[in-house]
Amino acid sequence: MSNFKLTVSYDGTDFSGWQTQPAHRTVQETLETAIGTLTHETIRVNASGRTDSGVHAVGQVVNFHSETRIPATSMVRAINAHLSGDVVVTACEQVHDTFDANRDAIRKLYRYVICDGATLNPFMRRYAHHCRHSLDAMSMRRAALPLIGEHDFHSFETAWPNRATSVRTILHLSVNRVGEYIWIDIEADGFLYNMVRAIAGTLINVGRGFWPESQVEAILRAEDRRQAGPTAPPEGLFLMRVTYE
Amino acid sequence: MSNFKLTVSYDGTDFSGWQTQPAHRTVQETLETAIGTLTHETIRVNASGRTDSGVHAVGQVVNFHSETRIPATSMVRAINAHLSGDVVVTACEQVHDTFDANRDAIRKLYRYVICDGATLNPFMRRYAHHCRHSLDAMSMRRAALPLIGEHDFHSFETAWPNRATSVRTILHLSVNRVGEYIWIDIEADGFLYNMVRAIAGTLINVGRGFWPESQVEAILRAEDRRQAGPTAPPEGLFLMRVTYE
Repeated sequence: MSNFKLTVSYDGTDFSGWQTQPAHRTVQETLETAIGTLTHETIRVNASGRTDSGVHAVGQVVNFHSETRIPATSMVRAINAHLSGDVVVTACEQVHDTFDANRDAIRKLYRYVICDGATLNPFMRRYAHHCRHSLDAMSMRRAALPLIGEHDFHSFETAWPNRATSVRTILHLSVNRVGEYIWIDIEADGFLYNMVRAIAGTLINVGRGFWPESQVEAILRAEDRRQAGPTAPPEGLFLMRVTYE
Repeated sequence: MSNFKLTVSYDGTDFSGWQTQPAHRTVQETLETAIGTLTHETIRVNASGRTDSGVHAVGQVVNFHSETRIPATSMVRAINAHLSGDVVVTACEQVHDTFDANRDAIRKLYRYVICDGATLNPFMRRYAHHCRHSLDAMSMRRAALPLIGEHDFHSFETAWPNRATSVRTILHLSVNRVGEYIWIDIEADGFLYNMVRAIAGTLINVGRGFWPESQVEAILRAEDRRQAGPTAPPEGLFLMRVTYE
């Protein structure tokens, strides 16, 4: 039995998220079907984490166990031959039997992309959130600084049962603009449900001048989801990279 | 009665081309419905030319006549409010009564985008043709040189009734590569049906080493469509710009 680690990229627009659910097209089920057809096995892929409906990935990481004799070097091309283009395997390596893409992830990088131009380029409408207000990216960057480090991010999570703690560590957070596009990069040791989208919705409220910069720190301290901004829509969100030891 | 000139950008993937046809979603009908809803008139938009099913536009140009009192400066935002994002108006100006976006176009620039990487980025699959062979872009560029200038391009057109002549003038033709992407830019005083896609299919045959560079000139001279390469698929094609006097 071999353990394979895959890096996977997908356009989440036409998927009902990562996790298999009846009567919905999901990334997990699409991948499992493709690999299963290739190896003639029942395959279960284990991802670094779920992504929601409409959320994209540049570098999602998964692992799966298989008896296949197909070498890792041939696997990318072989799996992609069974996929239809909106999910693509970009790398494959054989890893130690005990490697677990979910449990062993030590940090993840998400990017949230916003366009604040008057019109959104039609080629970007699936891949950016169109904000109809002009945003001050420098103000958003300053406002976000208090989020960096170890904090209880309860104000930025959608309620989810059986979660042990809301404490996470943001290792890196930046806000950058090029032309009409602003992107928010957040790297953390883990993320709560909808955390990046709640932070994005909050920073948008600051960037459009609706809230002062100091409000972000006040929201963090409040540990109350009702204080933060709305959950920004999924089309702007990308899982960029998952890091392992 | 005012005459408005619009610049329009669209993702052609989910349209059955430009021209209105029963029971199909087309760009023309989508635009006419949006403008008609806005102005409470029956609107007929007149484009620089049709684009086929799946073909994109960055800078399609159209004109329409209307009794509306809405100023051109408000028109972009007003029309876009009635559109759903995969077709967007990017500019509007009021023009002379006699301006005709089709008849008055003096040249057009098309771009054909190819990816020859092992895997196609899922975010580009709607906007590039994925070629499974490595291509030599420099060879494609040299092979294309004899196409520049005034020629009978009958070898590069799909048969179409009632066409007066196959003679056109290519003013500019370039082949460039950045990373895994190659784009072919062709500017001409006019284009025959499927001309850019037939040239792209021909240059791909050269770029992959299937044909010598000299074959392109031989095909041009043959004035026989069967000599040229296949019509490359629509997803790589963009109408970039239409120029008027």
